[in-house]
Amino acid sequence: MRNVLVIGAGKSSSSLITYLLQKSFEEDLHVTVADVFLELAQSKLNKHKNGSAITFDILNKTERQMAIKNANIVVSMLPAHLHINIAKDCLEFGKSLVTASYISNEMNSLNDQVVKKNLVFMNEIGLDPGIDHMSAMQVIDSIKEKGGKMLLFESFCGGLVAPESDDNLWNYKFTWNPRNVVLAGQGGVSKFLQEGTYKYIPYHKLFRRTEILQVDGYGKFEAYANRDSLKYKSVYGLDKILTLYRGTIRRVGFSRAWNIFVQLGMTDDSYTIENSDKMSYRDFTNSFLAYSPSDSVELKLRHYLKIPQDDVIWDKLVELDIFNANKMVELKNATPAQILEKILKDSWTLKKDDKDMIVMQHLFGYQLNGEKHQIVSSMICMGENETYTAMAKTVGLPVAIATLKILNGEITNPGVQMPIKKEVYQPILKELAENGIVFTEKEMPYLGYNPEIITA
Amino acid sequence: MRNVLVIGAGKSSSSLITYLLQKSFEEDLHVTVADVFLELAQSKLNKHKNGSAITFDILNKTERQMAIKNANIVVSMLPAHLHINIAKDCLEFGKSLVTASYISNEMNSLNDQVVKKNLVFMNEIGLDPGIDHMSAMQVIDSIKEKGGKMLLFESFCGGLVAPESDDNLWNYKFTWNPRNVVLAGQGGVSKFLQEGTYKYIPYHKLFRRTEILQVDGYGKFEAYANRDSLKYKSVYGLDKILTLYRGTIRRVGFSRAWNIFVQLGMTDDSYTIENSDKMSYRDFTNSFLAYSPSDSVELKLRHYLKIPQDDVIWDKLVELDIFNANKMVELKNATPAQILEKILKDSWTLKKDDKDMIVMQHLFGYQLNGEKHQIVSSMICMGENETYTAMAKTVGLPVAIATLKILNGEITNPGVQMPIKKEVYQPILKELAENGIVFTEKEMPYLGYNPEIITA
Repeated sequence: MRNVLVIGAGKSSSSLITYLLQKSFEEDLHVTVADVFLELAQSKLNKHKNGSAITFDILNKTERQMAIKNANIVVSMLPAHLHINIAKDCLEFGKSLVTASYISNEMNSLNDQVVKKNLVFMNEIGLDPGIDHMSAMQVIDSIKEKGGKMLLFESFCGGLVAPESDDNLWNYKFTWNPRNVVLAGQGGVSKFLQEGTYKYIPYHKLFRRTEILQVDGYGKFEAYANRDSLKYKSVYGLDKILTLYRGTIRRVGFSRAWNIFVQLGMTDDSYTIENSDKMSYRDFTNSFLAYSPSDSVELKLRHYLKIPQDDVIWDKLVELDIFNANKMVELKNATPAQILEKILKDSWTLKKDDKDMIVMQHLFGYQLNGEKHQIVSSMICMGENETYTAMAKTVGLPVAIATLKILNGEITNPGVQMPIKKEVYQPILKELAENGIVFTEKEMPYLGYNPEIITA
Repeated sequence: MRNVLVIGAGKSSSSLITYLLQKSFEEDLHVTVADVFLELAQSKLNKHKNGSAITFDILNKTERQMAIKNANIVVSMLPAHLHINIAKDCLEFGKSLVTASYISNEMNSLNDQVVKKNLVFMNEIGLDPGIDHMSAMQVIDSIKEKGGKMLLFESFCGGLVAPESDDNLWNYKFTWNPRNVVLAGQGGVSKFLQEGTYKYIPYHKLFRRTEILQVDGYGKFEAYANRDSLKYKSVYGLDKILTLYRGTIRRVGFSRAWNIFVQLGMTDDSYTIENSDKMSYRDFTNSFLAYSPSDSVELKLRHYLKIPQDDVIWDKLVELDIFNANKMVELKNATPAQILEKILKDSWTLKKDDKDMIVMQHLFGYQLNGEKHQIVSSMICMGENETYTAMAKTVGLPVAIATLKILNGEITNPGVQMPIKKEVYQPILKELAENGIVFTEKEMPYLGYNPEIITA
């Protein structure tokens, strides 16, 4: 039996482990799941006869190396900064490695040694990064093979709540790390290309410069720009492209309301609020508004940010209870972002039967034989329940599929890499489709980057 | 003869050196001015018989120590981060030291040794910090001596262009480091106290939350909040105070127009613009606006930031030439802030005969025998010309006066300190007044923090 070691039994490992266990009989696999919490690892295996749970401290070299030595291939689902020790052990003991994380500089620096040992260190093979790379490169390569010249590439992805569980005014619930949602867009300017010109959006304007997209059967969505849309320009072979934009999808109206928090300064994670533990939600809101001897917090906020009383963003704020004088923050030395996260969790935590939804859409504009063309490619994935979420499925399945294909020698090109080569993305996309993760492609008239038309 | 070593012959040293030379006969002084540029040091001395210019590299220990060993007291007018080596040498050779800079942690850590050697390391004795400390503490101490209880302290300071040289729509020119003006307010939230409540303003709202102040004979000014108004809360003995606010003064209307740059993202110093050297001013402006196949840069900006065409802030933008397609940026790998600084320097550089102006105002609110009182204390200082600016005078004179008083044993309390003790501020303020730097105090009805009334 071949031993697959999965390190990390968190939320995103459910679908990954289930896939490997389902394949374990025909593929002769044993799945070892390692986590700091033994019970968490056990729960993911559900007493399957081809699975075993172990516990170890990732920083304990002896324990870690023992587990890796016994594996035929290693999957790390830990946070990105914890991969590097595992990667070095894999290199030492000659094991291939799969992760869903961005390639760090440290990871990248191992490339020559990984190639020399003929190993595959496959990274960025979750959802985003992951499925986005593969589905985009499949279309880009096919356009280039036909002799087309890429003019435009826009790519959008978002984790949302499924329509049937969508019961708040924001049309949003946390389906992933809430902290990342609160901090989204911070830490630098957002940068992209529109019709040959570099464009820059500062954080405080990010949520007012959204783009609108349509997904057949699911209606309108909006997207705000990711921090660096240009990151994959040369990796994707798009050096001469005119428009390059990557964005995060929300339901229409989310960003305009979220902008209120940005404008107030509630998403700031760089300083702590005085006496935060003894504040009510109302006090917290008031600390971003000027003192007034007479006006209420509500009136001050409306006046400050010019919110009409019949505007739905007002109802969204009220729904979150930010004016409640009785609910206490209770967090000591908390940053505004930490307090806001707590307030949002009260309202946006998935309930037991809530389902989530992944939306991904790419736009490809290109020129072929003197004519301009445009393709829109969309993927929707619905979660099954709180454990088998769409997020866990779309992150975990490509990891699982890649792992098995590396183990079986179907993916062989060695090195530290992401899934942008045909030999990698083609078989994986095929199997993802068999598992319900399907992209629908549609030709449409070439629009270029034209906000008026896209919005309509 | 007693040798005063002044290190740094930049803009702020003119009045300082002139004062010391004028006193050199009666006080038996020799003034040694050291600078990397010998000619600059010489020019400040104007061939005075009691002055000599030397040049040395501040990082060359032998040269630096030689000069310091030969001095009876040392003044450092270098940028703050260069003080520490000088301070350590002063400690080694038993010399007192005067600087106009904020006390760094490194400087502060020398305190015990400075006390042990019975030396005075006087810092923060320029304008702001400096005159602000002294003039505020004089009033605060007198209120406390009467048995009053401090309720409110607001303190404002600004370097502006004098009314007679005020010939642009912004009513502003650079009288100090332009880079600091462009970056003002960045690097953290602005934090202060209003009627017992902590308030926080994020950078992107800073220039829309100004306060209005009046200075008799000079009209209305506005002020935006400094980063940390609470810094001197305990230093000033104001631990129980209800309102504490420190602000930077501009002419009314400056901040509303400056906010346009903030909103666009033009003041950002954290990333570089692609191909910045080959851009026109117009291209630069356009890089913060969305692409449009039809609309002009002007129309896009007006629409984006909702500027009516008859609003004076529009004329202010036009005056700076930010829509000029022929003026080139010419800076390689420049940040937005660096490019904006260049654009502003075209318009805001002081002309040869231009005069500058310093405005400082404090508000003190207090309770005495059950009644509430308020005092407003204001100081205006006009520059004489481009060299003897009001900025050079108000920064340099207190440094010079303190230097002589330490040398003469009139200020003796040892340690690393700022001028908040009566024995220090009283004689210095007296001599500043004799040199035309005068505060006018006025009793007024107690208003507390009441934006409506202050604005009126």
